[in-house]
Amino acid sequence: MNNISDAVIKRLPSYYRHLEKMLKEGITHISSYDLGKRMGLTPSQIRQDINIFGGAGRQGYGYPVQDLLEHIAKIIGITKTQNMIIIGAGNIGGAIVGYSSFIDSGFKTLAMFDVSEEKIGKKIKGVIVEPVSKLGEFLNNNDVKIAVIACPENQAQSIADILVSNNIKAIWNFAPIDLILPDSVVCVNVHLSESLQQLSFRLNNLI
Amino acid sequence: MNNISDAVIKRLPSYYRHLEKMLKEGITHISSYDLGKRMGLTPSQIRQDINIFGGAGRQGYGYPVQDLLEHIAKIIGITKTQNMIIIGAGNIGGAIVGYSSFIDSGFKTLAMFDVSEEKIGKKIKGVIVEPVSKLGEFLNNNDVKIAVIACPENQAQSIADILVSNNIKAIWNFAPIDLILPDSVVCVNVHLSESLQQLSFRLNNLI
Repeated sequence: MNNISDAVIKRLPSYYRHLEKMLKEGITHISSYDLGKRMGLTPSQIRQDINIFGGAGRQGYGYPVQDLLEHIAKIIGITKTQNMIIIGAGNIGGAIVGYSSFIDSGFKTLAMFDVSEEKIGKKIKGVIVEPVSKLGEFLNNNDVKIAVIACPENQAQSIADILVSNNIKAIWNFAPIDLILPDSVVCVNVHLSESLQQLSFRLNNLI
Repeated sequence: MNNISDAVIKRLPSYYRHLEKMLKEGITHISSYDLGKRMGLTPSQIRQDINIFGGAGRQGYGYPVQDLLEHIAKIIGITKTQNMIIIGAGNIGGAIVGYSSFIDSGFKTLAMFDVSEEKIGKKIKGVIVEPVSKLGEFLNNNDVKIAVIACPENQAQSIADILVSNNIKAIWNFAPIDLILPDSVVCVNVHLSESLQQLSFRLNNLI
């Protein structure tokens, strides 16, 4: 699974989403042609992708939807609950902790962290807000897989450093900076301002 | 500006962010080498990109930071205020309306829309929540450039249809579906579940 390209990794969750929808619709088998039509991909791209991530179909029968969905869930790693923490109990942190899709797909937020005295000790959607000063201790005592950085930009790198030194291997970063991280840590950025600016550019140049 | 690739469009806001930071640091000129180092790109990629979006530098002097920043702001379209509306006054909508970076870079939310009787008529961060039934009328009476879809998945397509029929040309979509839109409408998706699943995949396969 080490030669898999960025483009395929980005498509993987979209396969999951489409297959889940098909299962709900009662579809048991799907051809690469029909799956491609739903996903905006060519049948040959579909066959190539599924081949890369190791799913199996049978000529003339198509892919079994449930099997393929379970296989993809397994390689994404969402067949078991994964604990997260969120650093920053502001707008973004608050939106993420309340996002039911994450909970449904097995991501559980154990705690939030903030520096604001007003927020510390309170609960947001049932999740306690701890002081950032207790971040290291918390990570030592709990099995946390994923950390979400939703704090202000100027604190993001120092938070990332604490996370890394406490053995966090996956960071979901909403702060508008490129974090400096060791190669052993994976990071996915959600840069909302950049996303909105992209839209603005496309609108203003209509492409 | 019509042949500009997706990859360059995605990098454009990142140029803006880095140049803005440099200006704050008091840097007046930057070479393609130093800018590349900050952005994780090669000097030749930098020169190529800036050439594509029409920025000018002088051999031996580097690029003038302020001029380049202003040029990029102009082509992104953030030199003037752009009015937005947000459909869905839940977690995501609430996070977006309160996000100060958008306000700072000239995106102004005129109104939010929801179907919940509890939310309608209330204000979130100073922005009124209107009933979805008034969406078309509102768009007719106001100069709205960008619509943010932050409503539940099962309402997203019908909301998009209302937006399109009321002449909205840019949609920022947070609902986890691929909207069916005419070619004349630009759309940028932020699929948070997919982003988190990408991170999970990378963690579980450590690539």
